[in-house]
Amino acid sequence: MDQLFNPTVIKRSTRLNETLKADVTLAIESLQPTGSFKIRAAANLVDKTPASQFIAASSGNFGQALALACKHYGRQCTIVMPDDSAMVKIEGVEHYGAKTILIDTKVESRAERLKTLAQEFPNACITNAYDHELIIEGNASLGKELAKLSPRPDLIIAPVGGGGLVSGIITGLQSENAKISVWGAEPTLANDAARSLALDQLVQNRGEPKTIADGARTISLGLLNWEIFRQHIAGIVTVTEDEIKRGVKLLFTLANVKAEPTAALPIGALLSASPKLLEGKRVCCVISGGNVDIQVYRSLLSE
Amino acid sequence: MDQLFNPTVIKRSTRLNETLKADVTLAIESLQPTGSFKIRAAANLVDKTPASQFIAASSGNFGQALALACKHYGRQCTIVMPDDSAMVKIEGVEHYGAKTILIDTKVESRAERLKTLAQEFPNACITNAYDHELIIEGNASLGKELAKLSPRPDLIIAPVGGGGLVSGIITGLQSENAKISVWGAEPTLANDAARSLALDQLVQNRGEPKTIADGARTISLGLLNWEIFRQHIAGIVTVTEDEIKRGVKLLFTLANVKAEPTAALPIGALLSASPKLLEGKRVCCVISGGNVDIQVYRSLLSE
Repeated sequence: MDQLFNPTVIKRSTRLNETLKADVTLAIESLQPTGSFKIRAAANLVDKTPASQFIAASSGNFGQALALACKHYGRQCTIVMPDDSAMVKIEGVEHYGAKTILIDTKVESRAERLKTLAQEFPNACITNAYDHELIIEGNASLGKELAKLSPRPDLIIAPVGGGGLVSGIITGLQSENAKISVWGAEPTLANDAARSLALDQLVQNRGEPKTIADGARTISLGLLNWEIFRQHIAGIVTVTEDEIKRGVKLLFTLANVKAEPTAALPIGALLSASPKLLEGKRVCCVISGGNVDIQVYRSLLSE
Repeated sequence: MDQLFNPTVIKRSTRLNETLKADVTLAIESLQPTGSFKIRAAANLVDKTPASQFIAASSGNFGQALALACKHYGRQCTIVMPDDSAMVKIEGVEHYGAKTILIDTKVESRAERLKTLAQEFPNACITNAYDHELIIEGNASLGKELAKLSPRPDLIIAPVGGGGLVSGIITGLQSENAKISVWGAEPTLANDAARSLALDQLVQNRGEPKTIADGARTISLGLLNWEIFRQHIAGIVTVTEDEIKRGVKLLFTLANVKAEPTAALPIGALLSASPKLLEGKRVCCVISGGNVDIQVYRSLLSE
């Protein structure tokens, strides 16, 4: 394998568009190696960082992506995960050859354990999943691809958690001189980015938000991400839990796409957004990943 | 939209390969317009047939594909369907602008109604979904794509119903001078192709087989398809209902692919096949479509 990720998969569904009353192109990242866009960031980070070991705390998609990138480039990888993480996620990280450290988060926070590990392995690269220049640069590869879409979209909507994906897309579009508005889609239950933009200062959620969109359960945007958001984002659409669920089901039924709840945020945003935002516009929705527990997904389909 | 279908989506999943103990590349057709490979055939048929009207009996993927192709090329389309077809399938055909005729198959067979329609519309093109040169030629576009895969697979496995997909792939590979073995995957409950090859004569199933793989509920191979099978197919692997169900679930869990039961036949074949068939071989599995009723799919995920 020479290349660690593939071009995004572009799909249009006239049936989905009829239901959404919008002209939508999907950019599907759920079929990437490790099942999400995160491999773009992890591959760039590991490729360009001369460390023999990488350490991150992740119970989600970044852990698997970093594990695969480290395997690919011959580095060691350690992922700190809560000991109640879904078995399928732990297995995923271990499949790609990383070491997992399972901690009881009632006794010790992930941040504390990372601090201990940093002392133990002073030469390791300790990273988070979004607030890092090489992470944003890695995700910019998607923005560059979307800049080349023909016909060119008028606006792009992508999920917002820590802000790594949206800031990467903005950066990538800029490097191609593509003037396309970028919107974020954020759960109403985790609306720190929307509030930050309204107040023009970075605010945090109180504790981890209890949204079904587990990729958006972040306390706040990263600092680097926030700087890009405040300068360049067109806006944030907040999305209710019900709209997220409807988004997952619409993608399944009308587009044959298996999306994880976080990845359905842009579709939820279209259900939520004012028709004026969309009228006569070509919209690209980024479907960021497909890793969802089988029982969660079954229950989403039943509702 | 200039082009009616897209290149197949290629995906490799190391987790799927670990489970299957095989080196597998997926060629995913479920993201095509209308959700299956059938649009390749329908587009070619309509493009090259100078009829103003097309009529077919189909309760499945071919009906939607023919409807879209007719819409694209400005022709009329009528699809005869059993009146107990899933609502989602009737809506699908009508979404693409075709007229549906719903018949009570206890009173009148689809073949009888097609005969009546042929008398009523003598200039219409009345077609089935597989036994037609232009259908095979349309599906050959997939064979041509697979011939260009790098690294080249040693064998390709695709689902068998009427034989249109496999005969198309064989024809397409031949036109590119690509010497790749092509295997069919057929439900054990609908094993007419396997029996036909064993007896070296075309045999039929007794009535419509009750397999969950609804795309393989055909009475027999088409005549044109059978001629290609008897001369060129490497063999047929028969797949139990349980293996089909496991295939659907593995594609969901380890590859983020929503496959309909028929499309999981090649994965079921790998679960069923002798390890010797696969040892050291690069295998390409064609995932033929993704149109499956939501309740059927939920129950497949629960097993």
